[in-house]
Amino acid sequence: MGKKPLILVSNDDGIAAAGIRHLVEVMTKIGDVVVVAPDGPQSGMGHAITIGNTLRLQEVDILPQADAYECSGTPADCVKIAKHFVLKDRRPDLVVSGINHGSNTSISVLYSGTMSAALEASLEGMPAIGFSLCDYAADADFSHTLDYVENIARQALAKGMPKGVALNVNFPPRQNEPLKGIKVCRQANAKWQEEFDVRYDPHGRRYFWMAGNFVNFDKGEDNDEWAIANNFVSIVPVKYDLTAHHAIMTINEDWDL
Amino acid sequence: MGKKPLILVSNDDGIAAAGIRHLVEVMTKIGDVVVVAPDGPQSGMGHAITIGNTLRLQEVDILPQADAYECSGTPADCVKIAKHFVLKDRRPDLVVSGINHGSNTSISVLYSGTMSAALEASLEGMPAIGFSLCDYAADADFSHTLDYVENIARQALAKGMPKGVALNVNFPPRQNEPLKGIKVCRQANAKWQEEFDVRYDPHGRRYFWMAGNFVNFDKGEDNDEWAIANNFVSIVPVKYDLTAHHAIMTINEDWDL
Repeated sequence: MGKKPLILVSNDDGIAAAGIRHLVEVMTKIGDVVVVAPDGPQSGMGHAITIGNTLRLQEVDILPQADAYECSGTPADCVKIAKHFVLKDRRPDLVVSGINHGSNTSISVLYSGTMSAALEASLEGMPAIGFSLCDYAADADFSHTLDYVENIARQALAKGMPKGVALNVNFPPRQNEPLKGIKVCRQANAKWQEEFDVRYDPHGRRYFWMAGNFVNFDKGEDNDEWAIANNFVSIVPVKYDLTAHHAIMTINEDWDL
Repeated sequence: MGKKPLILVSNDDGIAAAGIRHLVEVMTKIGDVVVVAPDGPQSGMGHAITIGNTLRLQEVDILPQADAYECSGTPADCVKIAKHFVLKDRRPDLVVSGINHGSNTSISVLYSGTMSAALEASLEGMPAIGFSLCDYAADADFSHTLDYVENIARQALAKGMPKGVALNVNFPPRQNEPLKGIKVCRQANAKWQEEFDVRYDPHGRRYFWMAGNFVNFDKGEDNDEWAIANNFVSIVPVKYDLTAHHAIMTINEDWDL
């Protein structure tokens, strides 16, 4: 028997969220688990990092199966401080993030703290996966996701990850029928259409709540929105190279620069 | 003569930064300018959005050539509130962000608030450009960049932008010799290697400063790091579709899912 793999776990809902407890339980079946996660909710933080402020890091005892640390920073900060301070010379064999309370399909990958932890790990060359359940309820049922989480994580350890790639895995909310399987697919073409709710505080000063409706423009069936709507697990391989390679020639040819 | 184009300006260094004043000055030569920018520094905010807190928005008079608003949110928030509240039915012909005080080349595009404003606009189908000067000094000299900024913005208005694409434009710091021209290129393969400086507060509690060294692994000459190091302007077309399309087949073929 070889050494057990070292698995780093983070999330963006904070170390006390139900989703990360489920993820840690699954990962302890596979390897040695170290958790470095935000000390509070960090949803919607995108790939934010803390550069003008200090960070705190505290060992905590709320996840008894794992060495666990809460950090005052963003999910990307958590991966950085895990790598360079907590783990030092121990290199994780796998980095997993989530299980997020809420969807990170399509354009939400840009805003997602869950996925920023995974992308941060992928740019260090570590196999990395973000898991999200498309159910925002605090008491969401994660039970249908756990076997899939385990299998996908084991596959990543066995097969490795294509260079520069991380996985964005989303699960439909629990239905009456079992999940239909997995679709490896592309990010759907969809967006949030914001609305701003204007209110006035007790001092008469205006403020806003941002809210939004999700709008799906995508008519294809090879994307994550279709998969989730049809009770499949979606896996979108994503990369941190944002270059629109096809546009380089267009701009070189058509623009007078 | 047609109507003047409507240009929305934002940034991540805050509305009082020197870089946005330069950008507004250039844009007022081209069109009608509306500014919605953060009320303070938001560097390193990535694509963060404000979902658990309220937003403030205030008209300000510090950029006399333009209608200007400061917002308490992130750069992505600024574009959203500009689109849905400030501009309402007026659709910008161009969205520009910057000029950032500091580089947003290579992997820094992920962490960049400047580029999140541009990406946010691009996913609304608006031509969008983020401009950054690779000089962090508060009194950095922007003078060598301004003609380029104007030309690139005029080209974007004249030629339009490939669908789903925004531009990440970086300028070298001012040298003794003039800029050598423009390279339309890809994002370099480079990263930040963090170090954590451990300190103790007056109460004896540990805290950390995150610092980092930039490490460039890229041996190519077709990337933004090479362009900047050789005194060229770099233009990297970037996209919000993070799908690693080439990896879909690999995972479908090689993994047991």
